[in-house]
Amino acid sequence: MSEILYNRVALIGLGLIAGSMSLAMRRAGVVGEITGYARSPETRDTAREINLVDRVCDTAADAVKDADLIVLAVPVGAMGAVMAEIAPALKAGALVTDVGSVKKSIFEAVTPLLPHDVSFVGTHPMAGTEHSGPRAGFAELFDGRWCLIVPPDSANEADVVALERFWRALGATTERMDMDHHDLVCAVVSHTPHLIAYTMVGVADDLSRVTDQEVIKFSAAGFRDFTRIAASDPTMWRDVFLENKDATLEILGRFTEELFALQRAIRQGDGEHLYDYFTRTRTIRRGIIEAGQDTDAPDFGRAKKTE
Amino acid sequence: MSEILYNRVALIGLGLIAGSMSLAMRRAGVVGEITGYARSPETRDTAREINLVDRVCDTAADAVKDADLIVLAVPVGAMGAVMAEIAPALKAGALVTDVGSVKKSIFEAVTPLLPHDVSFVGTHPMAGTEHSGPRAGFAELFDGRWCLIVPPDSANEADVVALERFWRALGATTERMDMDHHDLVCAVVSHTPHLIAYTMVGVADDLSRVTDQEVIKFSAAGFRDFTRIAASDPTMWRDVFLENKDATLEILGRFTEELFALQRAIRQGDGEHLYDYFTRTRTIRRGIIEAGQDTDAPDFGRAKKTE
Repeated sequence: MSEILYNRVALIGLGLIAGSMSLAMRRAGVVGEITGYARSPETRDTAREINLVDRVCDTAADAVKDADLIVLAVPVGAMGAVMAEIAPALKAGALVTDVGSVKKSIFEAVTPLLPHDVSFVGTHPMAGTEHSGPRAGFAELFDGRWCLIVPPDSANEADVVALERFWRALGATTERMDMDHHDLVCAVVSHTPHLIAYTMVGVADDLSRVTDQEVIKFSAAGFRDFTRIAASDPTMWRDVFLENKDATLEILGRFTEELFALQRAIRQGDGEHLYDYFTRTRTIRRGIIEAGQDTDAPDFGRAKKTE
Repeated sequence: MSEILYNRVALIGLGLIAGSMSLAMRRAGVVGEITGYARSPETRDTAREINLVDRVCDTAADAVKDADLIVLAVPVGAMGAVMAEIAPALKAGALVTDVGSVKKSIFEAVTPLLPHDVSFVGTHPMAGTEHSGPRAGFAELFDGRWCLIVPPDSANEADVVALERFWRALGATTERMDMDHHDLVCAVVSHTPHLIAYTMVGVADDLSRVTDQEVIKFSAAGFRDFTRIAASDPTMWRDVFLENKDATLEILGRFTEELFALQRAIRQGDGEHLYDYFTRTRTIRRGIIEAGQDTDAPDFGRAKKTE
């Protein structure tokens, strides 16, 4: 029998992440009641229709009433406004957390609004798909994925430990990280790659000499993987870039530098530079497969290899 | 019963593409005998050991002797040298083709060396995985994939039609394309995306403040898809960039322009620009899914959704 970790959990925002959390909490049986709120009436209706949480509330304040854990699962730029809305309704001793992809700016937006008897610890479940909305969630989303736990310096160790147990119950592997380092690491492994994918897809779409039809038809040649990344939720990503501005711009600067060096090698016919670079990047892929972070199946297993 | 399309096919180069062609030819039963040659003795030994082709020859000239169709399946930069080697051994009336990712420079390297009684038609099977070598091949590689047929102006229609039938028998869907347009389309959907993926992976590897360990651990956040692309064969890709220099540099120029505009939007906090851009790229992804070029399964089906 599972132990109840929180009697009541309130999910503010009912998109892919919150929906998956609700389904994973039910699967784990570690929560008494799950309430939920979303700003859009359509999302609330959908959540009710598919029974996504135990009780969908029509205001954020109703949803957080008596909650032990409050999860802010809204776009990064909306965290402060949501916090202001729920602050007066929070019960003493509650823990507020968020699931945003940027940690420092959320901390700065949320903590000044916290009642003195409520704590905050940020988290970042590194899981997602290119789909969004209440119908996109599934209980297995976090299985085997990382959830970074980002406690502020003032955090209470008991809160942090409880949150770690909670995320592990949802299937994730947890790791603690300092908030500045978190934002830099994510700029490298996630934010900048997303921006680049968005850019490449935009370029293809702009080229009048190559038709959209051709781009779509022949996308399997590498471009397809970019389009998946570039299909992620526009609001979420707009906020990520605006809120992780410094780290993203820094990594973009490094990226441009390297790209120009490769561009120059192409222009000058410096095959050795290209070969050495491509050999080095290949070994990184091997590391990822050895670390169990991806399948070694060709083309992600899309190519059907016979037995 | 299948009709024999070519009595003897010679594969020059025994990597992923040639190996898959051999297995697909056998599956289709459309070829009498398949000979093969690879420059490296190790590759020839492996090909013999796994019975990749009907007969592995120790020289390219032996392999092409009496062949009706000769497939140049070596890196783009090696096509000219291979052509020079086999030219004296080609039989009158033979058809030479290649499977390189760049078409104009191969045409320019190969055709001046052609005997007057031998024809040339380029092809580009748009299929592959991040694996390479003789053991990487599988018969289904081309199933449902595009194979672009790029005939020179001087091509004989009967040769082109025969080659189209051949590729369709191997599972591919064929389309004819003019060589300059081919090189531009591929610069957009394949070559530039690869260069960008290589660059991003190299940047991540270079950053001393973010450890390789962290990059590998948290790669699922978007970076992983880049590493797959960036794990492709270094020799092949070096040659692609050197041989499709003009189109790649042109698309890279456009890419940099767009990237700078997005970078500026981030720096200036222009959320509307970012949101509009990301919304537009999302629709392109929908087009690709509707065109049947990719799965709609979240995260390429890596996320295990329950029934």
